Amino acid sequence: QIQFVEDKQEFSKFPTKTGRRSLSRSISQSSTDSYSSAASYTDSSDDETSPRDKTQVNSRGSTDFCVKNIKQAEFGRREIEIAVQDMSALISLRKRAQGEKPLAGAKIVGCTHITAQTAVLIETLVSLGAQCRWTACNIYSTQNEVAATHRGAGWRGESEDDFWWCIDQCVNTEGWQPNMILDDGGDLTHWVYKKYPNVFKKIRGIVEESVTGVHRLYQLSKAGKLCVPAMNVNDSVTKQKFDNLYCCRESILDGLKRTTDVMFGGKQVVVCGYGEVGKGCCAALKALGSVVCITEIDPICALQGCMDGFRVVKLSEVVRHVDVIITCTGNKNVVTREQLDRMKNGCIVCNMGHSNTEIDVASMRTPELTWERVRSQVDHVIWPDGKRVILLAEGRLLNLSCSTVPTFVLSITATTQALALIELYNAPESRYKQDVYLLPKKMDEYVASLHLATFDAHLTELSDEQAKYLGLNKNGPFKPNYYRYYWSARLEMQFNSSSFPPLA
Amino acid sequence: QIQFVEDKQEFSKFPTKTGRRSLSRSISQSSTDSYSSAASYTDSSDDETSPRDKTQVNSRGSTDFCVKNIKQAEFGRREIEIAVQDMSALISLRKRAQGEKPLAGAKIVGCTHITAQTAVLIETLVSLGAQCRWTACNIYSTQNEVAATHRGAGWRGESEDDFWWCIDQCVNTEGWQPNMILDDGGDLTHWVYKKYPNVFKKIRGIVEESVTGVHRLYQLSKAGKLCVPAMNVNDSVTKQKFDNLYCCRESILDGLKRTTDVMFGGKQVVVCGYGEVGKGCCAALKALGSVVCITEIDPICALQGCMDGFRVVKLSEVVRHVDVIITCTGNKNVVTREQLDRMKNGCIVCNMGHSNTEIDVASMRTPELTWERVRSQVDHVIWPDGKRVILLAEGRLLNLSCSTVPTFVLSITATTQALALIELYNAPESRYKQDVYLLPKKMDEYVASLHLATFDAHLTELSDEQAKYLGLNKNGPFKPNYYRYYWSARLEMQFNSSSFPPLA
Amino acid sequence: QIQFVEDKQEFSKFPTKTGRRSLSRSISQSSTDSYSSAASYTDSSDDETSPRDKTQVNSRGSTDFCVKNIKQAEFGRREIEIAVQDMSALISLRKRAQGEKPLAGAKIVGCTHITAQTAVLIETLVSLGAQCRWTACNIYSTQNEVAATHRGAGWRGESEDDFWWCIDQCVNTEGWQPNMILDDGGDLTHWVYKKYPNVFKKIRGIVEESVTGVHRLYQLSKAGKLCVPAMNVNDSVTKQKFDNLYCCRESILDGLKRTTDVMFGGKQVVVCGYGEVGKGCCAALKALGSVVCITEIDPICALQGCMDGFRVVKLSEVVRHVDVIITCTGNKNVVTREQLDRMKNGCIVCNMGHSNTEIDVASMRTPELTWERVRSQVDHVIWPDGKRVILLAEGRLLNLSCSTVPTFVLSITATTQALALIELYNAPESRYKQDVYLLPKKMDEYVASLHLATFDAHLTELSDEQAKYLGLNKNGPFKPNYYRYYWSARLEMQFNSSSFPPLA
Amino acid sequence: QIQFVEDKQEFSKFPTKTGRRSLSRSISQSSTDSYSSAASYTDSSDDETSPRDKTQVNSRGSTDFCVKNIKQAEFGRREIEIAVQDMSALISLRKRAQGEKPLAGAKIVGCTHITAQTAVLIETLVSLGAQCRWTACNIYSTQNEVAATHRGAGWRGESEDDFWWCIDQCVNTEGWQPNMILDDGGDLTHWVYKKYPNVFKKIRGIVEESVTGVHRLYQLSKAGKLCVPAMNVNDSVTKQKFDNLYCCRESILDGLKRTTDVMFGGKQVVVCGYGEVGKGCCAALKALGSVVCITEIDPICALQGCMDGFRVVKLSEVVRHVDVIITCTGNKNVVTREQLDRMKNGCIVCNMGHSNTEIDVASMRTPELTWERVRSQVDHVIWPDGKRVILLAEGRLLNLSCSTVPTFVLSITATTQALALIELYNAPESRYKQDVYLLPKKMDEYVASLHLATFDAHLTELSDEQAKYLGLNKNGPFKPNYYRYYWSARLEMQFNSSSFPPLA
Repeated sequence: QIQFVEDKQEFSKFPTKTGRRSLSRSISQSSTDSYSSAASYTDSSDDETSPRDKTQVNSRGSTDFCVKNIKQAEFGRREIEIAVQDMSALISLRKRAQGEKPLAGAKIVGCTHITAQTAVLIETLVSLGAQCRWTACNIYSTQNEVAATHRGAGWRGESEDDFWWCIDQCVNTEGWQPNMILDDGGDLTHWVYKKYPNVFKKIRGIVEESVTGVHRLYQLSKAGKLCVPAMNVNDSVTKQKFDNLYCCRESILDGLKRTTDVMFGGKQVVVCGYGEVGKGCCAALKALGSVVCITEIDPICALQGCMDGFRVVKLSEVVRHVDVIITCTGNKNVVTREQLDRMKNGCIVCNMGHSNTEIDVASMRTPELTWERVRSQVDHVIWPDGKRVILLAEGRLLNLSCSTVPTFVLSITATTQALALIELYNAPESRYKQDVYLLPKKMDEYVASLHLATFDAHLTELSDEQAKYLGLNKNGPFKPNYYRYYWSARLEMQFNSSSFPPLA
Repeated sequence: QIQFVEDKQEFSKFPTKTGRRSLSRSISQSSTDSYSSAASYTDSSDDETSPRDKTQVNSRGSTDFCVKNIKQAEFGRREIEIAVQDMSALISLRKRAQGEKPLAGAKIVGCTHITAQTAVLIETLVSLGAQCRWTACNIYSTQNEVAATHRGAGWRGESEDDFWWCIDQCVNTEGWQPNMILDDGGDLTHWVYKKYPNVFKKIRGIVEESVTGVHRLYQLSKAGKLCVPAMNVNDSVTKQKFDNLYCCRESILDGLKRTTDVMFGGKQVVVCGYGEVGKGCCAALKALGSVVCITEIDPICALQGCMDGFRVVKLSEVVRHVDVIITCTGNKNVVTREQLDRMKNGCIVCNMGHSNTEIDVASMRTPELTWERVRSQVDHVIWPDGKRVILLAEGRLLNLSCSTVPTFVLSITATTQALALIELYNAPESRYKQDVYLLPKKMDEYVASLHLATFDAHLTELSDEQAKYLGLNKNGPFKPNYYRYYWSARLEMQFNSSSFPPLA
Repeated sequence: QIQFVEDKQEFSKFPTKTGRRSLSRSISQSSTDSYSSAASYTDSSDDETSPRDKTQVNSRGSTDFCVKNIKQAEFGRREIEIAVQDMSALISLRKRAQGEKPLAGAKIVGCTHITAQTAVLIETLVSLGAQCRWTACNIYSTQNEVAATHRGAGWRGESEDDFWWCIDQCVNTEGWQPNMILDDGGDLTHWVYKKYPNVFKKIRGIVEESVTGVHRLYQLSKAGKLCVPAMNVNDSVTKQKFDNLYCCRESILDGLKRTTDVMFGGKQVVVCGYGEVGKGCCAALKALGSVVCITEIDPICALQGCMDGFRVVKLSEVVRHVDVIITCTGNKNVVTREQLDRMKNGCIVCNMGHSNTEIDVASMRTPELTWERVRSQVDHVIWPDGKRVILLAEGRLLNLSCSTVPTFVLSITATTQALALIELYNAPESRYKQDVYLLPKKMDEYVASLHLATFDAHLTELSDEQAKYLGLNKNGPFKPNYYRYYWSARLEMQFNSSSFPPLA
Repeated sequence: QIQFVEDKQEFSKFPTKTGRRSLSRSISQSSTDSYSSAASYTDSSDDETSPRDKTQVNSRGSTDFCVKNIKQAEFGRREIEIAVQDMSALISLRKRAQGEKPLAGAKIVGCTHITAQTAVLIETLVSLGAQCRWTACNIYSTQNEVAATHRGAGWRGESEDDFWWCIDQCVNTEGWQPNMILDDGGDLTHWVYKKYPNVFKKIRGIVEESVTGVHRLYQLSKAGKLCVPAMNVNDSVTKQKFDNLYCCRESILDGLKRTTDVMFGGKQVVVCGYGEVGKGCCAALKALGSVVCITEIDPICALQGCMDGFRVVKLSEVVRHVDVIITCTGNKNVVTREQLDRMKNGCIVCNMGHSNTEIDVASMRTPELTWERVRSQVDHVIWPDGKRVILLAEGRLLNLSCSTVPTFVLSITATTQALALIELYNAPESRYKQDVYLLPKKMDEYVASLHLATFDAHLTELSDEQAKYLGLNKNGPFKPNYYRYYWSARLEMQFNSSSFPPLA
């Protein structure tokens, strides 16, 4: 059952945003950063009036927006300026492409988390010639002060109904017909597809950020109902590598410290799953003096773990002795109640993997166990004999809930999105059919190259002779475009899986 | 021009083995370990009589072999016993499959480096039911004492003519018609294809180890002349990962120490190329206190280097100051004469990458520079002002020439070869066409799993519920078979390249 | 001029607590953890009545205390329980010594930071037989809810006058005459010495925690006016090693993340000073992918830095290019205005070393620079051309201000304090003269051994034969008592220094 | 019993050099490098004539020397030139002090290992004005080709009688009366003290390299019979740090690879002892992917091990499972026969610690065990059931026997020796009494500073204001001279030990 096609539901029947968020979040980590860090800088004013009922005017005299409090725009501007400092690639893109205005005529409607980093993206798109309207892909994540700085609709804590109303405001406005979509989760695409089929047909391209949204696009494509070329930027290599390996390497430390102040040195840690996320967690903890072992189901990853210096064990073999348990498998019930029963007093349990399925949290919601919330995002679950297990973020993603994502990583995502929009908007018609595409390898490499300046890194250029010897173009791409194949192969496995339950 | 098809040359017209060896070696590192370590344990007896002119009898009274000195068999046996200690996966395979004799009836002719580890492979094949005849794929690499322990032909230092004669001895013997080929470099396959087309047609499968041999098979396949299924084991993931990342991580240290006794701590090192080989070299040297920077042409690899903590520079920017330069690019003339001129006194230059092309050694063969051989594999090249550049292995592969490959890695290769032979010999006819295949992902995983015992690693098994959730079979494969696609994409680029010059 | 002796000042003339705190804090990091972490869990109730003016009754019906709000005792109890989980060494000491009650008869007056960890110490002392009264050594650091759980006086935000009043309350109470002092900073000792000379003479021992307090004791001793044996626990080896190397290794990461969310990977960092603190910072940042270089004045430390893989540079050589500057020198004006002028936009500057002297913050308080407080503890200092330098904690200690100290480290400090009290209280009179002592090596080792259980570490025991061979007692000490000499040598240098300005 | 005083033995009664060597070697690692590396470059000519019976003339027409073969001088010169490349500190010292000739008039007799690095030292001393005569401190370590390049006596493989004869030749020659001694082991000092008491009295200073020699000097001093100032350079901090931590970090890898070609990745290793040597071994192996645990007797070192990420275990707990066992304790019988019996097949056992006492090798010399020498320095000890334990260097020091010491480390030693000679020769009479001294801290720092150029390291200089603030002289010393105290404390413990058995 293909959601885009079959879904006939009304607003109130949609799955709650919370549930859907965590699904998308598991891969598209960068798109949800705002939960932890930004939240603290946003106002907690007591104004309970719905923005839909307010009349506000911005500094240019316009009323074409719907935000919590337009007066916060100045504060929002400051947050944007801070973000700009770590997004030099995007600024550099602005400067390089500013003259040609490659997005002149583009009318982009965007539906992503509304954060300072997103604002830098929007302002980049505008400086390249585009007009933009923006709405929030998540009801909890909007930085209200940033939302106050640009045209669009959305606020932190909006209702489900508000959510769809805001999307609608950005699509259906007099004198405005979008011709490009930038989406994170597929809700905007869904809305246009269902409610405005005529607008949908005239869209020149969709850029989709999240694994959920990509999945929904593939379903549509498989059903022969995707009439627009779409670009899957979730699977671009720079994003994958940064979001998983490198960011997790840093955020596992940050998340544990902010919640528990635990000392890493000497701690016995078991990391479940040795994929990219697990590799990042293991590397960081080992580097800080923890004694780390891993669990794996795949012998090849297990063998890599061995060579990297980690004992490969079954969780049940070590569960009695370890100080910290971190799940990074993408699987469900990796930590079971039976294992929770056997943990030692003070054991910390948390999840860096997929959604909130990895730890069987539900199994601890039983009468004999006492839950004590000791800090924000930290529960002590207390056994009858007094043993305490320290559960973080109720088993949801630790780095989403309890740490931040560096602006630099968000810059990679935003730059990739901008390039994908430029590519789809400017490509000759013959280049992209009505299908889902990966970003061409060369543009992936271009995103990377724009970010090298941050590190003062100097690329070597091939001589003519060397390029000929290697059979490469001097300007790249330097690696083959095999990721499309990769995706196909991966998708084939996922369609057999129940981890993407029928969304309708 | 496809070599297998067009080549009409006679023995003497073949490219010299030396040239070809280094080509194949660049990827199939494991197959050439014998150069350094084993060499020292081999006899240096003065017997100049050609083995072809000798009559020797082994302990079982047979004369069906042609080796340097049959009396060394006992010494060879001891070397084999040492090797067995680190090849427990192969022994384990022996035990598991011994009862079924999956190779009963197989007549395998092999052409690989003849080393103690190869002998363990041969004896494994025999214990699984096969008959074997073996010959050397390289005129310099045979461990004579090991060759004395089994049926076949080859000796260290044989001539080109001897080389092809030995191959012929193993293919064309009365009462013996091979039905399986295990090759390393493609020379045996070529010989059978050209000289014994009738034998070739009856072959049930070819297993090829080297990148050169695989390339030649693809050429044959593309020309529609491959009438036998072939298995490319060079690209199996366990082999790639171990040969490149992990082995280079260890062998860069070993190679530098054995040649120069250099202290790593505090040394300024530039590693050219940040692929798997470069990553291994960088990790090891950084871990031992060197200050490492890298050069790259590919912005994605460069960005990885940045995140891993290495400065990305152009060689020319740092060449005046660094203590050690290591090439790992697969490219040519990465270190030029102009750069060599600018190096400081005592700079060490060596190659861990491809063939012997990376350092422009030829450019230093000029009258104004004096070459002084100070140790085996170590030359001081002396400039007119007295400056010395320390060149290792004359720019050939450092780890081939100056360090050893752990038996454990060779065990992975040998186990993969054995499984590929079993698979091709036993597969239903419909499974493999007349094409080049990668080892099925599941068998790749099986090779890995056989090696986990060495590390006392315990795999976690999926529950039924988890397998269903992930859409996986509980016994694997756990990753998709996308490598075939990968190979195709890679090949496409390589065909445009001049690094595989026309072999005919 | 010796402060204890000459000081005639009244309350109001004392240096402000703030100024003094930072001095003591620079070494005794553990004693001030409460600033950052604990602060957030303490009430921010609006009750403005001074505790001195309130009448409160605790759950046992007593009024013998003076705290902010006795009703918070239950909340305080929970914080103590959390702390107990990471202080198993202290609990273990309780159990081992409980039977003998080695502190029976001891009347201990304590003046330290009042935190949950301190409460665990107090309760340990009580369970070993002591009576205790406690007061705060710092006007800002008290966890009010913890203060509510025990007998004593002090609250967060008390005035200077309150500070001395609270001390006086703990010393001079009807029916209570202290015979042991546990001090952190020397203020309590000073008070007793000056105001109650008769009490002072009957004290059986002083245990001093901070470098400032130790310095003041040595001054007294040098002047021949110390009539009580004192124990310097600041310089015990477990404390030094943990407070400096290991804690800084973790807190540099924590402090930077909590304030700036900076990504460590690829960042260019300069660490000024390669002592234990610098070594910890460098190790952590290198491990997370930063490119780290160091500055040093001492060639031996510089050579260690080289061998550990860090470039040794002058700050002025790299100041234009680096992303982060961290001072760990113990020196003053290590970062000057001239260097601040040359930093690049977005450079982060912070201090992990001594006091608040290392960065010349005062030099930036000039009209042409704009200060913008962007977050708590984070200032953007903006140059006329728009360049921003990001200054953390206004140049005060980053880990004091912006990160937390693990309870495990505080456990080491508290255990050492408890053992020092036991030793001084029980030692035969002849053992300690009226002088300042280091904890005997054997007790230092005992503190370490009590903490090994946390790591499930198993010590090896010497056989009789081995002990004889090594000339050691089987139960230790395993290292010589040379630290006394060390201290003397160090002190000699410090007396020539102006970093301990005349306190009077 | 003080050896220098009581010893009445004749030549033949001395302990064999082999035994004594290993004792001195355990700390003075650098002085014995020649065993492994240099050995291979030395001639193995068959000339059996004793050098004492030959008449040879050098290129300057002199016969005042006694070496194996004067014709090798040219080869020796080349080895010296190679060494010079890594000894830039010594060359720099030459240049700085050449003008003043601070050793003018010095007649130095030296007794150390005769290697290329020693030759660079000798030539440095000569260029500073000294006359030198040199002899070997070890009967096996002389590089004959280097010995041929300077005035002195000694050859590889000389007898005990030759040994003392060579010493005598250097002390007692017509027209030559030494006034300075540079010794390694104390044999030369002993000889002069006993045989030429009148010469001894006129000596202006003794510089001693080894722990054994230093111990003997302290004995003499304690007995009141040392009539000459002596300098203990063994305990200078640069030498200690480099010889133990940093060198072992590199040589453990080198030694294991050269002997066994073992792959480090994934290996389970136990390191016995976590002092500086153990720390170096652990760091290197962990960095290369081994799973390392440690054993310790001292709880403080154990706690450091915990924080550094190593499990602390008893050997007996893990001995059944580990792949490699490395002893670094300084103790005896750390690995017992009972434990050897329990090791698994293929376990590698080696010693990086003290002498040859750590592994109870003698216990394996029993009839039921078979010893098989499989390579140089590698024995398989075979149990009746076929189990093999791989013993390296028969339990002697692995890095002495099977790896090399970088020239850079020897440069530190040699520079320290040179400075000590200069200091003793030039110091005003009042500065040094008839006692054993450590090198003044400032000179230790000067040695370090001379070596910084190798790493292009730039020291920061204190401003006047900063120096005053810290109470330091701008030119150092930067650390106190507390090592003298340290040594006294350490010595106290050692005198109770049996590890320095009565030498007489």
